[in-house]
Amino acid sequence: MFRLLGLILTGLLISAGACFAQDPGGAATLAANPQAPVDYVWILVCGFLVFFMQAGFAMVEAGFCRAKNATNLMAKNTIDFVTASLVFMAFGFAFMMGNDYKGLIGTSGWFLHGANYDVGRYLMFFWQLVFAGTAATIVSGAIAERLKFKAYFLYSLAVTAIIYPIYGHWVWGGGWLSKIPFGIGHVDFAGSGVVHTIGGFVGLAGAIVLGPRFGKFGKDGKPKAIPGHSIVLAALGTFILWFGWFGFNPGSTFSAHQLRIAVIAVNTNLAAAAGAAVAILLVFAKTKKWDVGMMLNGCLAGLVAVTAPCAWIEAWSAVVIGSIAGLLVVLSVYFWENRGVDDPVGAVSVHGINGFWGLISVGLFADGTYGLGTTEGPLVKGLLYGGGPGQLIAQAIGALVCAAWAFGLGLIVFKAMDKFFGVRVSPQEEIKGLDIPEHGTPAYPNFYIFNN
Amino acid sequence: MFRLLGLILTGLLISAGACFAQDPGGAATLAANPQAPVDYVWILVCGFLVFFMQAGFAMVEAGFCRAKNATNLMAKNTIDFVTASLVFMAFGFAFMMGNDYKGLIGTSGWFLHGANYDVGRYLMFFWQLVFAGTAATIVSGAIAERLKFKAYFLYSLAVTAIIYPIYGHWVWGGGWLSKIPFGIGHVDFAGSGVVHTIGGFVGLAGAIVLGPRFGKFGKDGKPKAIPGHSIVLAALGTFILWFGWFGFNPGSTFSAHQLRIAVIAVNTNLAAAAGAAVAILLVFAKTKKWDVGMMLNGCLAGLVAVTAPCAWIEAWSAVVIGSIAGLLVVLSVYFWENRGVDDPVGAVSVHGINGFWGLISVGLFADGTYGLGTTEGPLVKGLLYGGGPGQLIAQAIGALVCAAWAFGLGLIVFKAMDKFFGVRVSPQEEIKGLDIPEHGTPAYPNFYIFNN
Amino acid sequence: MFRLLGLILTGLLISAGACFAQDPGGAATLAANPQAPVDYVWILVCGFLVFFMQAGFAMVEAGFCRAKNATNLMAKNTIDFVTASLVFMAFGFAFMMGNDYKGLIGTSGWFLHGANYDVGRYLMFFWQLVFAGTAATIVSGAIAERLKFKAYFLYSLAVTAIIYPIYGHWVWGGGWLSKIPFGIGHVDFAGSGVVHTIGGFVGLAGAIVLGPRFGKFGKDGKPKAIPGHSIVLAALGTFILWFGWFGFNPGSTFSAHQLRIAVIAVNTNLAAAAGAAVAILLVFAKTKKWDVGMMLNGCLAGLVAVTAPCAWIEAWSAVVIGSIAGLLVVLSVYFWENRGVDDPVGAVSVHGINGFWGLISVGLFADGTYGLGTTEGPLVKGLLYGGGPGQLIAQAIGALVCAAWAFGLGLIVFKAMDKFFGVRVSPQEEIKGLDIPEHGTPAYPNFYIFNN
Repeated sequence: MFRLLGLILTGLLISAGACFAQDPGGAATLAANPQAPVDYVWILVCGFLVFFMQAGFAMVEAGFCRAKNATNLMAKNTIDFVTASLVFMAFGFAFMMGNDYKGLIGTSGWFLHGANYDVGRYLMFFWQLVFAGTAATIVSGAIAERLKFKAYFLYSLAVTAIIYPIYGHWVWGGGWLSKIPFGIGHVDFAGSGVVHTIGGFVGLAGAIVLGPRFGKFGKDGKPKAIPGHSIVLAALGTFILWFGWFGFNPGSTFSAHQLRIAVIAVNTNLAAAAGAAVAILLVFAKTKKWDVGMMLNGCLAGLVAVTAPCAWIEAWSAVVIGSIAGLLVVLSVYFWENRGVDDPVGAVSVHGINGFWGLISVGLFADGTYGLGTTEGPLVKGLLYGGGPGQLIAQAIGALVCAAWAFGLGLIVFKAMDKFFGVRVSPQEEIKGLDIPEHGTPAYPNFYIFNN
Repeated sequence: MFRLLGLILTGLLISAGACFAQDPGGAATLAANPQAPVDYVWILVCGFLVFFMQAGFAMVEAGFCRAKNATNLMAKNTIDFVTASLVFMAFGFAFMMGNDYKGLIGTSGWFLHGANYDVGRYLMFFWQLVFAGTAATIVSGAIAERLKFKAYFLYSLAVTAIIYPIYGHWVWGGGWLSKIPFGIGHVDFAGSGVVHTIGGFVGLAGAIVLGPRFGKFGKDGKPKAIPGHSIVLAALGTFILWFGWFGFNPGSTFSAHQLRIAVIAVNTNLAAAAGAAVAILLVFAKTKKWDVGMMLNGCLAGLVAVTAPCAWIEAWSAVVIGSIAGLLVVLSVYFWENRGVDDPVGAVSVHGINGFWGLISVGLFADGTYGLGTTEGPLVKGLLYGGGPGQLIAQAIGALVCAAWAFGLGLIVFKAMDKFFGVRVSPQEEIKGLDIPEHGTPAYPNFYIFNN
Repeated sequence: MFRLLGLILTGLLISAGACFAQDPGGAATLAANPQAPVDYVWILVCGFLVFFMQAGFAMVEAGFCRAKNATNLMAKNTIDFVTASLVFMAFGFAFMMGNDYKGLIGTSGWFLHGANYDVGRYLMFFWQLVFAGTAATIVSGAIAERLKFKAYFLYSLAVTAIIYPIYGHWVWGGGWLSKIPFGIGHVDFAGSGVVHTIGGFVGLAGAIVLGPRFGKFGKDGKPKAIPGHSIVLAALGTFILWFGWFGFNPGSTFSAHQLRIAVIAVNTNLAAAAGAAVAILLVFAKTKKWDVGMMLNGCLAGLVAVTAPCAWIEAWSAVVIGSIAGLLVVLSVYFWENRGVDDPVGAVSVHGINGFWGLISVGLFADGTYGLGTTEGPLVKGLLYGGGPGQLIAQAIGALVCAAWAFGLGLIVFKAMDKFFGVRVSPQEEIKGLDIPEHGTPAYPNFYIFNN
């Protein structure tokens, strides 16, 4: 009798989230760990940098798209983080980092309620939120210049409430992928898969459902270049993203006491540089022009690829991984274009394909000097360092699951919306540009604009 | 006799600022508090972010104003921080944070001289300076496109030497408002009032003295939209401000040992998101257009409103406070426009009105889990958490004093300048744009511009 | 016999870099110094800010140059950091911070190989890299709008592999300049000389070899203004640089345990403000126009000048040093223009001349309260604080060596390239703008542009 009462009470406490110590003011947490402040500072500052990547994505997309859609792109790149913030607080965080249910989904922490009113939980929420927002915003490049704003609003909701957090739970929330019996399970240090492959493959689904922009392919089916309206904005955005990535990757130790953060910062930077160098040289070899757009995408591709392995590799590996990313992004851009998929900013190639490559690269280049955010416990070791094929298999499984999950759910979401209300703007609106029909304001009312 | 000599010596020492330990190198401060480095890192990095908000304000104002005044806006947004830096070092800091005189004003620390040559004092000066610079720059949006540059130079001086630091002393420097006998005295965690209401209401005074821009109101008195020249810059500026606010609010603990910083970061972000969501949905309900400008202002309104309460509330309250801010900013923009006040970027509504609301909200939503930058001592508790009406009264008094002080002194400054030399440029200059007559250089000499 | 074997073994170990403890994971470093995390956080975050200055330089240069070359400027400002990252990892870092050879050059640490796979070494590499990248990018402003991209690629390589790291070794790597027998040897806290004078004087060499842009000088030899295409971008870039400088200078303590960082931040800011104020007032006195471009350059000049002395001076000295920088930059811009040197963005005046002034100013204003990144050991004391002429002589020697080294090697590099393949684009390409011939893409294809 008493025992039953006890069980019920315990159940209630757990449902209220009381299974961990609640400390909204932070004094108890500090008393328990006097070294916590430097970790909080590190995680918050890195999180701020990750947030700032929103500005980077907005500028890159604006730069690579046309002036007549610039207001629309600003609207999308703002609303996705707005939606992410509210929805991830309500549901996403619980699905991702809540108490695990059979390795599939988290089930506690709704609305940051009850015992989640705790400095440590809020800190984790903030960190996970800025990542969720990044995944959401990646998609907007692939579906640019033709998607209805309403559809974008709803899609952001789906990504940050369902698609991202559930897959995130599988890898970072104690879910099944992190426990598959190959290597030490599937690992993804800072999210080549969780963030970038997810974003990129949802974007691929969106681009396919939408179809190409008016004028992207000639009558012969050959792709035509539709140049963006500002290389300066694209470059600014890339610099902001590169800057933000120094929060994204090194901050993913979730602790300043992991001095490995210095290695991660260096690797992050080298992969970006190598990707940019290879991409611009490749295109120069072919066209004799120094292609800035491709260099910027090569840089981002290097950053995406190194995101999974950054903590487990040496500097030279970062250069190799980034170089391959620079190659892959060029090939991938041509590949999709030649298959009739119109991805205005190259989001599928940069994030989808190179996120995939980043996950695989862990299984090759991880050198066994570092583990899961610590030098203790199981270390990550790839094929080239004598780790055997186990980790590579784990990485391949995770990468395939990630791409399939994102592409599959992306298809469902975009097809469902298309069925209900049509996701694409009218041809007239598309030709005129989305800014005035959707938003009532052109982006540049003081300038004479070619309406190409 | 000896006693008299002692008193004189003490007086001299005090006048030299020797009442606290002077440590320009920092070794003694470190020895006394080996945990100081993480606090210094936190405060400085957050201060750098607050500084960077200057770029955000510049971009928002440029974006929301016309191309023909863009050089002028860049000049203003730079010169105000330049002036603030020099004037606040000379006088402002002493008025604000110097030794208190009867609760009214500070009286020591001129020119960072003497014993102020100390790492701790310089740290505090840096922090207070970036806030003073923010207050100054807020005004420039409200008086944009028609104020003489000379007047702006002088006004910046008045705000950063007098208006801001004296009110700041009343709330943060140990002055009378912090000690009124309601609740625990008037409180304002990161400056909804001290920075934003001050800036917004000085701006209101300026906008009234200047009168509306040529063409803002039709012959029937109805307001006309004057669209800004770049939604992209406005969005970029908003992202930069949002980013900088993560320094503004969490950094206001002035200590990394307050792990509450995690809660503050989350609240800051949620209020921004809620404000943006409500503003865009509200305008959509009315016009069926997704208004990006209003979404950006909604976002900023949420940030302004949550600035005072951010440390004393839960996540859900941040969503509510931000939502109300999103509503208020829309209503306020219409309100002032319909009363003939021309505020080109909505600075009065974003900063003035929502700063006011932020102060009030503390008296409602403060939940009693946190105090004055510490979990010890008096906690802040509002009406909804059983704190009684005391805190709400303290907040209302402070908000009214703040608005009246800023508006009153703003009126005096702008009217006085107007009397002496006329604050407004000539109609010809205004129509032509201020860039060439005031600065000799158009902002965009390579582009064809509509001179609307 | 055993002794010989021992020597050989030692030699092998040293050549493998094993002369310091190798700790790729960071656990041993943390165990040896539990206070390391806050230093790592400080250095990394400041390094991220310095990296972000790349975006600032890109925007300033874009803003001050014409729209028809904007793609080219983005290409250059990206490729220099890309090149720097790869080349500095391969060679530059070893030349600069490797084991000293006779005070002339470093000789170990190639490719971050072997024992350099260590958290502390990677941290130092990251910090030195972002500085090397800054030196490289400074040049691009002086040679803007007429240099072939290929030449820029090669020049970046020369600067980051040879010119910068060898001079850097002399001052920061334990080389001969740091040990000259005057004062406490030549000192340069954060690189007025190592970074800015080097960049500025290589740029001067480039500008001379290239000759002025088409149309810069009239038939009478009088200089004509060629206005840049966006004051907004120039202002944004300046704000980003100012922001990044808060990493550049305070981070150069390379330790958060030096609370002097607060003083450095304040000095950095005051010099920027003073430089901006003096420059705009000077030009106003002459032209009655508020010249925004000169104000921005005055701000940057103040920042450059205070970079060497920032840690060794009081606030008032920072104001004086910055004010003189504001004066110098105005005079220097006129000086070079009147001697037929065309430096489109004023890089020689801002970085070269004011870097020189910054080095000298240490010998005058250093107040003897701080030393070489510590309050212990030899303190830096200048003439005005009774330090005698020794430090001033050391500073003058270093400044002259720095300018001569940079200008001399710059001349060799640019002349050699000019001989082999011609560094300047064809007149037709220059008039048309470099974007299409070099890169295949105009920066702003949606806008109507004046091709001036």
